[in-house]
Amino acid sequence: MEEIKHIKIEKDMKISALVNEMSEAGFGAKKISEASSIMKKMFEDKECKVFLGVAGAMVPAGMKQIIIDMLENIDIFVTTGANLTHDLIESLGEKHYMGNEFEDDEKLNKEGIDRIHNVFMKNSVYEKLEDFFKENYEELRKCNNIKDFLWKIGELSPGDGILKRCYEKKLPIFCPGIADSGIGLMIWGRIAEGKEKTNIDVFADMNNIIDFSWKAKKAGVIYVGGGLPKNFIQQSLQFSKGSDYGIQITTDRIEPGGSSGAPLREGISWGKMKGNANFVDVFCDATIALPLIYASVK
Amino acid sequence: MEEIKHIKIEKDMKISALVNEMSEAGFGAKKISEASSIMKKMFEDKECKVFLGVAGAMVPAGMKQIIIDMLENIDIFVTTGANLTHDLIESLGEKHYMGNEFEDDEKLNKEGIDRIHNVFMKNSVYEKLEDFFKENYEELRKCNNIKDFLWKIGELSPGDGILKRCYEKKLPIFCPGIADSGIGLMIWGRIAEGKEKTNIDVFADMNNIIDFSWKAKKAGVIYVGGGLPKNFIQQSLQFSKGSDYGIQITTDRIEPGGSSGAPLREGISWGKMKGNANFVDVFCDATIALPLIYASVK
Amino acid sequence: MEEIKHIKIEKDMKISALVNEMSEAGFGAKKISEASSIMKKMFEDKECKVFLGVAGAMVPAGMKQIIIDMLENIDIFVTTGANLTHDLIESLGEKHYMGNEFEDDEKLNKEGIDRIHNVFMKNSVYEKLEDFFKENYEELRKCNNIKDFLWKIGELSPGDGILKRCYEKKLPIFCPGIADSGIGLMIWGRIAEGKEKTNIDVFADMNNIIDFSWKAKKAGVIYVGGGLPKNFIQQSLQFSKGSDYGIQITTDRIEPGGSSGAPLREGISWGKMKGNANFVDVFCDATIALPLIYASVK
Amino acid sequence: MEEIKHIKIEKDMKISALVNEMSEAGFGAKKISEASSIMKKMFEDKECKVFLGVAGAMVPAGMKQIIIDMLENIDIFVTTGANLTHDLIESLGEKHYMGNEFEDDEKLNKEGIDRIHNVFMKNSVYEKLEDFFKENYEELRKCNNIKDFLWKIGELSPGDGILKRCYEKKLPIFCPGIADSGIGLMIWGRIAEGKEKTNIDVFADMNNIIDFSWKAKKAGVIYVGGGLPKNFIQQSLQFSKGSDYGIQITTDRIEPGGSSGAPLREGISWGKMKGNANFVDVFCDATIALPLIYASVK
Repeated sequence: MEEIKHIKIEKDMKISALVNEMSEAGFGAKKISEASSIMKKMFEDKECKVFLGVAGAMVPAGMKQIIIDMLENIDIFVTTGANLTHDLIESLGEKHYMGNEFEDDEKLNKEGIDRIHNVFMKNSVYEKLEDFFKENYEELRKCNNIKDFLWKIGELSPGDGILKRCYEKKLPIFCPGIADSGIGLMIWGRIAEGKEKTNIDVFADMNNIIDFSWKAKKAGVIYVGGGLPKNFIQQSLQFSKGSDYGIQITTDRIEPGGSSGAPLREGISWGKMKGNANFVDVFCDATIALPLIYASVK
Repeated sequence: MEEIKHIKIEKDMKISALVNEMSEAGFGAKKISEASSIMKKMFEDKECKVFLGVAGAMVPAGMKQIIIDMLENIDIFVTTGANLTHDLIESLGEKHYMGNEFEDDEKLNKEGIDRIHNVFMKNSVYEKLEDFFKENYEELRKCNNIKDFLWKIGELSPGDGILKRCYEKKLPIFCPGIADSGIGLMIWGRIAEGKEKTNIDVFADMNNIIDFSWKAKKAGVIYVGGGLPKNFIQQSLQFSKGSDYGIQITTDRIEPGGSSGAPLREGISWGKMKGNANFVDVFCDATIALPLIYASVK
Repeated sequence: MEEIKHIKIEKDMKISALVNEMSEAGFGAKKISEASSIMKKMFEDKECKVFLGVAGAMVPAGMKQIIIDMLENIDIFVTTGANLTHDLIESLGEKHYMGNEFEDDEKLNKEGIDRIHNVFMKNSVYEKLEDFFKENYEELRKCNNIKDFLWKIGELSPGDGILKRCYEKKLPIFCPGIADSGIGLMIWGRIAEGKEKTNIDVFADMNNIIDFSWKAKKAGVIYVGGGLPKNFIQQSLQFSKGSDYGIQITTDRIEPGGSSGAPLREGISWGKMKGNANFVDVFCDATIALPLIYASVK
Repeated sequence: MEEIKHIKIEKDMKISALVNEMSEAGFGAKKISEASSIMKKMFEDKECKVFLGVAGAMVPAGMKQIIIDMLENIDIFVTTGANLTHDLIESLGEKHYMGNEFEDDEKLNKEGIDRIHNVFMKNSVYEKLEDFFKENYEELRKCNNIKDFLWKIGELSPGDGILKRCYEKKLPIFCPGIADSGIGLMIWGRIAEGKEKTNIDVFADMNNIIDFSWKAKKAGVIYVGGGLPKNFIQQSLQFSKGSDYGIQITTDRIEPGGSSGAPLREGISWGKMKGNANFVDVFCDATIALPLIYASVK
């Protein structure tokens, strides 16, 4: 057994030094250091294909740049429609704002402010979104799967962002729940106006991700939150040899039995994770844990 | 101010009597009674259209019959692909089993058992699923939106279940993340075998649910878990006058900012909930809270 | 493997029938039924000494009568000073009130209302407490351990309540953190006024509970919340053969490593729980779970 | 409204730089930065008396040195008997070890290992504790309040640690639940052996902390975990003007109504916190949040 050593905080300490000290501590600190070490291995293992799944409102919370930087290290990106909508909103020049969760929501509603916990957004952003989709609808509706549709948005969007980078890098991006988002609303709006329908088959992307899983010699997964992104990656991994590396950052409970809170270990029974895989569950708000872990491997 | 009265447990007490006593208690007990009273109002209000969103693995956990019974009282049903897959699995004659969360997952994997917290399922259920989708693929691929596709599965499925009942009652059922499920895998399997593709546009259902929200004089929402079902309903309600009644049962945290954990109050800022609506957030495992609440209104 | 059966809610259903149905379900519902069955065994086992530890503000929340009723089935009671202070407050004729957690706390402060989540209490209750302790101080300061001190309060208190019942039944009641409570404040107040000091040695009660544990042929534990009550019982059980039965109801997390959130299983390593004991961790607000479980065994 | 800016991770980034970037982000990241800024103000405000309450097993988890360093900045320290016992154990030359929470607890029990989540301790440490208390009992039993008793242990303990430092600095240290700890067991052991009883009145320390609160021009509180330490500080603050600064780090839920999970805001109704105080609730494992926050102010 190795001794616990007490974390010593030094003036002007680097994040990597702190995370290194955490490797000899216990409880959540230890988990942060384990995630750091697993992320390092996953990124350095040439044979390993890395799947990143991001749920939760990471873009409004100021995590966009970290996700963009992580795109350098990953092979498959799966996220929610919400994150992509907020990414596009910023790409169109709109902003999110620091707010607070104690504000009167009726007052906010009257002022045209949408609240996402302690982040605010002007409801008027939808106008810019409308303009973008009105202008580009004909191009977008030519797409036949969600990945191509998202790449096309990335191509057409004026500013930088996650979508733009995925397009530029031709990084496969999946978003099976795209209809459930502001982007979905914009498409609905065009059709409601009488435009011709889209032709994006709901199952068309599955082949891509499953094929990718199937061919991967080794796989690593990073789940920020759970939700559809985690489950969609997990599902594809049933067709792999099982993941070799895994990091999950979530605050969801195990006990109510949902996929978002399920520990990575559960995936072993399903063949989504190898029995001898290198994995860790980090119980922490991702806006705290992800910057810490990522900074320690950068 | 009204006095707290202490809950008195009587021998052979009825659930409705307990929930009634909870109405004069505090903390979570009070919330259960509030949810009961709001559910009653929602179900009795003739003008109110009720939206039920169910995330989490409610079918494996033994909550299928309660959901089926609740279909009598609701107008729109939104759920995850996982719940529908597990519903279909049972409809095909397969079962879920009582397990436990401490089991060795490698051992389970070798024995062909998939674990969902303390519930087990034989991996061999996928064979029956395969047979069903092989047999019925041509019929299923004629569908042009997810709702029709799910109704068709309900129509064709041999046994009783949620899908069957939604079909029989022509109850609108939405599942924007259907690709992320065993049902999705089955469709992928057919296409991988060389069958012709499906033609189910990912945005095709939006018109249905938004139109429904738009026309509803009053609206009530019941969110079991959060996830896509909650968000998809919330999104459509932006086109309503805002919900008049709301019940949310979740154990997700507010602080990390995700939609699943967001309190109903937050929806007021977005116009998804009326400022003067009658709503309650219940912090409880849904397999405990839902039977209790539903039993008290039945 | 036994099949999951779906809970069927019947009109006018009894709690015991629901909990019985939960025994064939999964997730938290299953845990409720397990707790019910373990509580039944613990109460019926003639050789088993039952230790009940209650943390959290159970009295303000309306759970006092359930605790009083449970005193019939237990042998040792450990709780917090807060619960006993609130019990005494009610015994003196004061009340708790239904409030809500969204109220403006500055406004409440100005109105003399103390808030405990969604329960309110008038700050003026302290006057009645003062009177009681002024009147009875000389009697109380004769006590030489906390148990006797609490029994004496029970004896002297005018109304019914937990303290009164413990006194009447001579049920050993422990409260190692008594100084941390309104009762503690009252004693401090007397001494500050110049009254002679108390003489209640902080370690004097340990002999009682450890001796009791040591002699118990079998032991059962019920932890409502964690905190000092749980830890104090656990500590004494190190001197027993280890507990044979265990129920823990808490919503605290395991991951941050504190005693309150630690699963009962952890106690096996310490010898506080037998390796083959019959135990369950229930993740649920105690104001929901306790009435349900207790009603099913009554 | 100020814009959210996206956190940019740089190579070799300092913790203070990251926490500074978090000040323009949302969700939990923002809370970390708020806690950092409040801690800075609290420590720099010459008129402010700082109360630190530490619950949870912080010493076994490797947080001892951070607590020791923080003693430089605080005026009152309140903690659990468990933390002080583990501190003394290390001061006597024993260690805690890195373990894991998946280990078989029966096996650990046979091997004489006590588990605290993912930290292990040899049960044999109690022998060294016994020796210490046998040797020093006569000196210790002369103490008449818990603070003096703890200072005396600090004086007599051979190695460095929290207790030693509190003694050396004459920093008031309170531990109302001392009987509930290994230290308590050691005292019980001596008395069981026939030694004369201690004479440490359970209410004797209250005067000290309340008097201190009463005289403080301004007050700041830092609660690591909740439990008795938080409540004991809160209680004393009812006799102050209310706290001016507050930081709470906990993962306990608000909804079940206990003191440990109660948001700082609730204290305003009781007069424990000023209405216009500068405070923040940080939802995070303290072994992650505390090093981060403290490093950013050091």
